[in-house]
Amino acid sequence: MTTEVKPTSRERLLEAAATLTYRDGVGIGIEALCKAAGVSKRSMYQLFESKDELLAASLEQGIAAFVATLLPAADDGRSPRERILHVFEQVEAQAGAPEFRGCRYLAVQIELKDQSHPASRVAHRVKGNLTSFFRAEAERGGASDPVLLARQLSVVFDGASARAGIGADSLTGLIAPTVITLLDAAGMH
Amino acid sequence: MTTEVKPTSRERLLEAAATLTYRDGVGIGIEALCKAAGVSKRSMYQLFESKDELLAASLEQGIAAFVATLLPAADDGRSPRERILHVFEQVEAQAGAPEFRGCRYLAVQIELKDQSHPASRVAHRVKGNLTSFFRAEAERGGASDPVLLARQLSVVFDGASARAGIGADSLTGLIAPTVITLLDAAGMH
Repeated sequence: MTTEVKPTSRERLLEAAATLTYRDGVGIGIEALCKAAGVSKRSMYQLFESKDELLAASLEQGIAAFVATLLPAADDGRSPRERILHVFEQVEAQAGAPEFRGCRYLAVQIELKDQSHPASRVAHRVKGNLTSFFRAEAERGGASDPVLLARQLSVVFDGASARAGIGADSLTGLIAPTVITLLDAAGMH
Repeated sequence: MTTEVKPTSRERLLEAAATLTYRDGVGIGIEALCKAAGVSKRSMYQLFESKDELLAASLEQGIAAFVATLLPAADDGRSPRERILHVFEQVEAQAGAPEFRGCRYLAVQIELKDQSHPASRVAHRVKGNLTSFFRAEAERGGASDPVLLARQLSVVFDGASARAGIGADSLTGLIAPTVITLLDAAGMH
C-alpha cells in the first residue's frame, strides 16, 4: 500500500501548491498546503526537501499545461503571425475566468523577489521559453528585428495579463490591437 | 516629549513598511517592521489599527514621490507625445538601479491578491491615475483612440517594469521603441 499511496500524496501536494499559491500567494503556509492535500507534514517532508522545493516542483509540473493552453501545435500550418496571435487569443480567453490572477510564472517571481529561489528559476526559464517562441516565429515571419519584437510581445503578455489579474483592466479590445500594431510595425504581415 | 516622538515613530514605520515590503514582499512580519523602525509593537498599534493599515498608509505616502519621479511638471511646455515619453524615460532610468523591483503599486496588488485590501485600493487608485494621465495627454495630442492608447501605455508600463524588476529583461532599447510605435500608430506625432 505504502508504495501506492506515496505518488498520490505527491500529486495532491503539487496540486495544492499550484492552486493555493496562485490564489493566495507564495506566503501560504505548509500547514495549509498539507491540509488541502490531505497529507501529513511528515509525509510532505519525505517527498520534498522544503516548501521551496515543493513550490518549484509544482511550477515545473504546470509547464505542460501552460504550453498546451497557450502555444499553438508545432505544425499547425498557420503563419507565424497567426501563431503569435493565437497565444494572445488564449490569454484573452483565460483572463475572462473569475479566478484569473495573471501569469503564475510572472507572479511567483514578483512575490519571491529572489532570482535564486528554486521556484524563481523554474519560472524564469518558462518565461524565457515563451520569449524564445515569439522570437522563432518572428524570425520565420520575417520581422525586421525579431529580438525586439519578441521582447515587446513578452512585455505585452506580462503587462496585459498582470493588469487583468489585478482587475485593473480587461483584455477585450486591448491585447489583440496592441499585438497587431507591434506585428505590423515589425513588417510581419 | 511624547507628542514629539509620536510623529517620528509614524514616519519611521511608514518608511520601514515602504522599504521592506518593496524588497521582501507584503508577507514581511510586524516584528521585522517594528524592529527596522525602532518602534515597539505597542506603539505601532497605537499609530495604526493593523499591519494592513500601515501598508496602505505607506503606499499612500509614497504617491507624491511616485508622481514627482515619473510625471512631467504640469505646464512644462512640451508636447503630449514628449510628456508621455518622459514617463517611460523615467522608468528606464529607475530600472537601472540594482534595487529596482518594478512598480510597487503593481507588485502589492499581485502579492495581496485581494482587491478589497486597503493597500490594494490605494495601489489601484494610483495606477488608475497614471492611466488617466496617459489618456489626458492622448486626448490633447489628438490620438485616434485616446482610451485605447492609454490602456496600451499602461500595459507597457506595467509589463516592462515588472520584467525589469524580476530580471527577465532590461528596458534599454525596448521601452522607448515600443511606446513610439504605439504613439505613431495612434497618429500622435
